[in-house]
Amino acid sequence: MASRVSVGDRVRIKKGSLVYEGVVLPKSEFSSDKILVIKLDNGYNIGVDVSDAEVEVLSEGVVRFHESELSSSIVKGNGNLKLTFLSTGGTIVSRVDYETGAVRPAITATELLEAVPEFIDYASELAVVEYSRLFSEDLTPAYWAELSSEVGKLIKSGADGVLVAHGTDTMTYTASALAFALRNLPGPVVLVGSQRSSDRPSSDSALNMKASLAIFKEAPFGEVVVCMHGTISDNYVLAHRGVKVRKMHSSRRDAFQSINDAPLARIDFPEMKFRLLNQRFIARSKREDFSVLSRFSDKVALLKFYPGMDCGIIDFFVDRRYGAIVIEGTGLGHVRNACVDSIARATEEGVITVITTQTIFGRVNMSVYSTGRKLLKAGAIPGHDILSEVAYVKLSWILGNYPGLDRKEYVELFHENLAYEYNPVHKDSLFPVWSHEH
Amino acid sequence: MASRVSVGDRVRIKKGSLVYEGVVLPKSEFSSDKILVIKLDNGYNIGVDVSDAEVEVLSEGVVRFHESELSSSIVKGNGNLKLTFLSTGGTIVSRVDYETGAVRPAITATELLEAVPEFIDYASELAVVEYSRLFSEDLTPAYWAELSSEVGKLIKSGADGVLVAHGTDTMTYTASALAFALRNLPGPVVLVGSQRSSDRPSSDSALNMKASLAIFKEAPFGEVVVCMHGTISDNYVLAHRGVKVRKMHSSRRDAFQSINDAPLARIDFPEMKFRLLNQRFIARSKREDFSVLSRFSDKVALLKFYPGMDCGIIDFFVDRRYGAIVIEGTGLGHVRNACVDSIARATEEGVITVITTQTIFGRVNMSVYSTGRKLLKAGAIPGHDILSEVAYVKLSWILGNYPGLDRKEYVELFHENLAYEYNPVHKDSLFPVWSHEH
Repeated sequence: MASRVSVGDRVRIKKGSLVYEGVVLPKSEFSSDKILVIKLDNGYNIGVDVSDAEVEVLSEGVVRFHESELSSSIVKGNGNLKLTFLSTGGTIVSRVDYETGAVRPAITATELLEAVPEFIDYASELAVVEYSRLFSEDLTPAYWAELSSEVGKLIKSGADGVLVAHGTDTMTYTASALAFALRNLPGPVVLVGSQRSSDRPSSDSALNMKASLAIFKEAPFGEVVVCMHGTISDNYVLAHRGVKVRKMHSSRRDAFQSINDAPLARIDFPEMKFRLLNQRFIARSKREDFSVLSRFSDKVALLKFYPGMDCGIIDFFVDRRYGAIVIEGTGLGHVRNACVDSIARATEEGVITVITTQTIFGRVNMSVYSTGRKLLKAGAIPGHDILSEVAYVKLSWILGNYPGLDRKEYVELFHENLAYEYNPVHKDSLFPVWSHEH
Repeated sequence: MASRVSVGDRVRIKKGSLVYEGVVLPKSEFSSDKILVIKLDNGYNIGVDVSDAEVEVLSEGVVRFHESELSSSIVKGNGNLKLTFLSTGGTIVSRVDYETGAVRPAITATELLEAVPEFIDYASELAVVEYSRLFSEDLTPAYWAELSSEVGKLIKSGADGVLVAHGTDTMTYTASALAFALRNLPGPVVLVGSQRSSDRPSSDSALNMKASLAIFKEAPFGEVVVCMHGTISDNYVLAHRGVKVRKMHSSRRDAFQSINDAPLARIDFPEMKFRLLNQRFIARSKREDFSVLSRFSDKVALLKFYPGMDCGIIDFFVDRRYGAIVIEGTGLGHVRNACVDSIARATEEGVITVITTQTIFGRVNMSVYSTGRKLLKAGAIPGHDILSEVAYVKLSWILGNYPGLDRKEYVELFHENLAYEYNPVHKDSLFPVWSHEH
């Protein structure tokens, strides 16, 4: 049996002379490991014993855990903003079920309003939608496509603000996906997460969600932002540009930090006072100018370079007909000279290679040293001061929405500063001062 | 012709019925691309037209650029420390040759003493050795083995301090390699680099080298440290523990920052005043207890996880009989659930998989969420608060020096805190305060 079949995947099962094609369904806890249950295109579900069958994954699927259980409800409030709370999963919507001891990844409208009663004051209408119950490490480009399309629909149908509750692990990736997919936003889209689950007294979730209300009401920008604690106390929340933020600590509440950028805004508590910190932002657009380009390619790879890296790993992706590879190089954007030929081959085969830097801060500059110049000659594209994660998402978005362009057009699109994902002029002063004395 | 043959590689060339085996030599600038010049085992050099030949790389080589030109000299001083300045290459020893315009990656004793005359006051004897002329992105585990063996010899023959000039791009990796290879150091080994070449007025190289003298004289620790600017001014230099430092900016002079650790010491200028910042250090050992374990395996991979990552990349390394893989996971140490089977297969095949976190700061904790628990069950080893780069080097060192251990012994060795590469109790207060107001 194929070891890597996941729920939601579209598969073809060959068993002797029989062939079945369909989407893999979740198994009950009691079903055998040998049985794969799929939904056929005619709507019927069948279980197939695959112990002696050949299983081919045709396309990876997007699954919303226990879809039939997902709930949504609408609450009327006293404010004037039409808001949607979209829950994707993650710690922020996780609660320990004290009867069974299990973590329950769901939040009801009642629970949300108990945690953040201010929603009633800000919203004219609040839709609380459980969109999926997924850990953020399981999200894929196919999921970004579905989610951005859904958020796009909400905005088109008049939402003033969309609050996306999301696991923190891959929040940068999803925030970037939304930032590229949602063009000319009429208002902010806010991602919030939590480093401590909502039912713990130390939870950061309520404050992060509250801060989003100030953003929806007062922010002049029409951007996708991440709202997370600015410190380990409950004194303020920072709104970071979605394409310029990174989770920089595995557990602290102030794990999210703006990289090569100042945070966009700060919301002080308990006053809930909004303060703009960054004058460089994309202003809110007219709603009629808003559009959605929600396709993402899953044929993009992200490689972190390391000394002695087997250059064959680049060939691995070229051989699998990937469209683009982001290589997180060293310093100003270097990889070992031994890999230059593999990159040249990738270019010849039509694969776009973008070089970013594993220093995280600062920008690449491949004209300083001979290694960089050789990489440029081999067709590598310098990634400015874009985060590796964001370059990965951007290429997935470009390849997904603009199939069939030629190399020159792809490179031009990559250099277009679509969501302020890079600074055309990088200033060293964007580096924060690090203090160990506290 | 094989596209990935580098100078120093051991190759086998099959040309019709003839087979040649030897080490690839540098070509003159005028020789044809089709000709590979190799040194045969009998000592003779031959050039082979490989346009119609089959070239197989038997092992990757370590090459010291233009070996015949490497120089060394010894200077007598007025101090009482026996010191060696070992130049490996990189910006710190690069100078623009104003006659030809080319960058010359070499520094002579005279040039070193012009830049840092204090060497004369501190050293009884100073050996200035040009060990290699390599950009640090080209260094490999094989090079770490040679270099650590060389530094070991110097210390065994009585050196009080060894100063290694090194490119900054992969300095963390080399510093860690030395830290694992040099057991019970009688004194500090200092790596210095430069973000601006030495002949530029803004160069940081002289101050970083000067600081090393204070370290050699006053530091109570016997550790491998990285000495680099603490700020963009010339007011102080920080000595970071080699296994706990990272280049965090592509170009700033204060790019190096201690991660999950306080810097070991600070040297203020112009007084050259040494101050210990971290009470947790490995003290200088007796010289007779010093030993060197300098082997490194090149069968270790470092993978950065990203959403939708093709789990086949794990199989790629397992199929190539790698001994260990470091996976830089998200948050507390997660990868997508779809990859759990590939990790379980790696474990079955005897491959050690260590999980670190791409948040860089904080530690992994794989017992909190179900994803982490599944990874543990599949055999993944949690990497504490070790940097991904350092986990990679540590596994290369373990596999190189202890071949043939069983899984349990490898895991035990990995959990041994050999060079204070992790904090047995990780404190969140190790996270620096980030200020954007400067």
